[in-house]
Amino acid sequence: MSTPLYGRVALIGLGLIASSMALAMRRAGLATDITGYARSAETRATALELGLVDSVHATAAEAVAGADLVVLAVPVGAMGALASEIAPALAPGATVTDVGSVKQAVIAAVAPHLPAGVQFIPGHPIAGTEQSGPRAGFAELFDNRWCILTPTPDTDAAALERLRALWNGMGANVDVMEPDHHDLVLAVTSHAPHLIAYTMVGVADDLRRVTDSEVIKYSAAGFRDFTRIAASDPVMWRDVFLTNKAATLEILGRFTEELFALQRAIRRGDGDHLHDYFARTRAIRRGIIDAGQDTDAPDFGRGPHRGR
Amino acid sequence: MSTPLYGRVALIGLGLIASSMALAMRRAGLATDITGYARSAETRATALELGLVDSVHATAAEAVAGADLVVLAVPVGAMGALASEIAPALAPGATVTDVGSVKQAVIAAVAPHLPAGVQFIPGHPIAGTEQSGPRAGFAELFDNRWCILTPTPDTDAAALERLRALWNGMGANVDVMEPDHHDLVLAVTSHAPHLIAYTMVGVADDLRRVTDSEVIKYSAAGFRDFTRIAASDPVMWRDVFLTNKAATLEILGRFTEELFALQRAIRRGDGDHLHDYFARTRAIRRGIIDAGQDTDAPDFGRGPHRGR
Repeated sequence: MSTPLYGRVALIGLGLIASSMALAMRRAGLATDITGYARSAETRATALELGLVDSVHATAAEAVAGADLVVLAVPVGAMGALASEIAPALAPGATVTDVGSVKQAVIAAVAPHLPAGVQFIPGHPIAGTEQSGPRAGFAELFDNRWCILTPTPDTDAAALERLRALWNGMGANVDVMEPDHHDLVLAVTSHAPHLIAYTMVGVADDLRRVTDSEVIKYSAAGFRDFTRIAASDPVMWRDVFLTNKAATLEILGRFTEELFALQRAIRRGDGDHLHDYFARTRAIRRGIIDAGQDTDAPDFGRGPHRGR
Repeated sequence: MSTPLYGRVALIGLGLIASSMALAMRRAGLATDITGYARSAETRATALELGLVDSVHATAAEAVAGADLVVLAVPVGAMGALASEIAPALAPGATVTDVGSVKQAVIAAVAPHLPAGVQFIPGHPIAGTEQSGPRAGFAELFDNRWCILTPTPDTDAAALERLRALWNGMGANVDVMEPDHHDLVLAVTSHAPHLIAYTMVGVADDLRRVTDSEVIKYSAAGFRDFTRIAASDPVMWRDVFLTNKAATLEILGRFTEELFALQRAIRRGDGDHLHDYFARTRAIRRGIIDAGQDTDAPDFGRGPHRGR
């Protein structure tokens, strides 16, 4: 066990990310104690029962009292109201961070509420699963994943290094970048892919001439890969698209342009165009595996799965 | 070991599917002996060295001589020429099947070449990985997966039952359907998803303002799920799109229609539309897991992956 990096850490929102942070902080002894708040009394009780947090509180303001580090882990659309509520209760010198998937909108919603003397360092761990809630967390979620921090020019260097050390201690690598660049990068690697996956699953579900039962039985032909990310939390994703509009729409515009070019190649029977396009995408897969960001076990290492 | 269902089985093409069939047939003792042919001498040598086949042959016609069952396991676009070449060498009473991802085009290309007295029973095992070649095969590939057979009205009932028993013996469940319905179902569960995944990976690769290195590092946010199926064999997929044009273009048309509706909801800030759309797609995921067609381990059970 190392010396704790922070005294009290307050987790506001107790879903997949916050519960994984709690377990990862405990694994490495990074916090003296952890307080928690969630809107739902049931979630609070579960978090306490699982030992994720040392105490839960009836309001977010109570939970942040005396905290050295406050982590906003709620859907992006809820960040502004939350910041406004906790601002008067924040300890002088505290650091506030978040784990939202969009950075410019979170900064715009949160920063104006925070008092002078509080360090706000927006963050986004690039990790997750399709599961939600306090029971979904696990200590290894961030191991060998990246966490992006988007500090402002005023951010105190020591506060930034301490937060970086926390993420390193939870297993993650840390990158620092500008908020607008973050939002564009994530539009490509996350937001557009999620919208596309949701759309494809919705189309399959709607198609009258192919039954849901057929879609399910024959999903191993490719479709099921889409259903994993399309099973993610609907509120979180609604907020992502509403708050990262411009970048997401830009990438979707590029996507449909390319898709139309491929559709035209199919219609015209242009096999060379299709083959060349398909041949170059293998390199990126190889890069992802070499970087340790995915498994090279065929089919993600899925074995045959008998029904439950 | 059961009594072999077939005497000699000839595998024409020795890639992922054929090599997995060889291993699955050997696991259950379903064939007396297995002959093989592949265009590449290296592939033939590998198949022999791995013990997938008992003999390899310099031509497909030699490989099918004396075979009770001939399996055409080549890209869909190569099926017609292959059928023409082997037709004179087929044993009377032999069954010819295939494993192509498209059925109407394969029937149109293959059936006219086959002599009377040979049973042609088109087939398609709904299983695979992103890997290719004879070393990619494994005996469990078909366990608890579905194989679709699309016999014609003239197909001999006994020949059909024998082929069904072979697939059952290799671990698969068997469904029988019309070729045009197969092609529509697969356009939804496989062909459109693959084209969409290839497109998204291509867009990410092309985008000047986001580097490939960023795409790779932050791929765990969703993108990497797409890269698996976009790493599939380019020749196979070129042929699929060229030969299942109508159904694929129909599904892609539905897809872009839905995608545009969601893009409009994003632009307008219609959170209810987005939330409702995202909420209903979880049910299909649940169905796929309950049917044993995917794992419910979060994130496909992928652990953290250190670089290799």
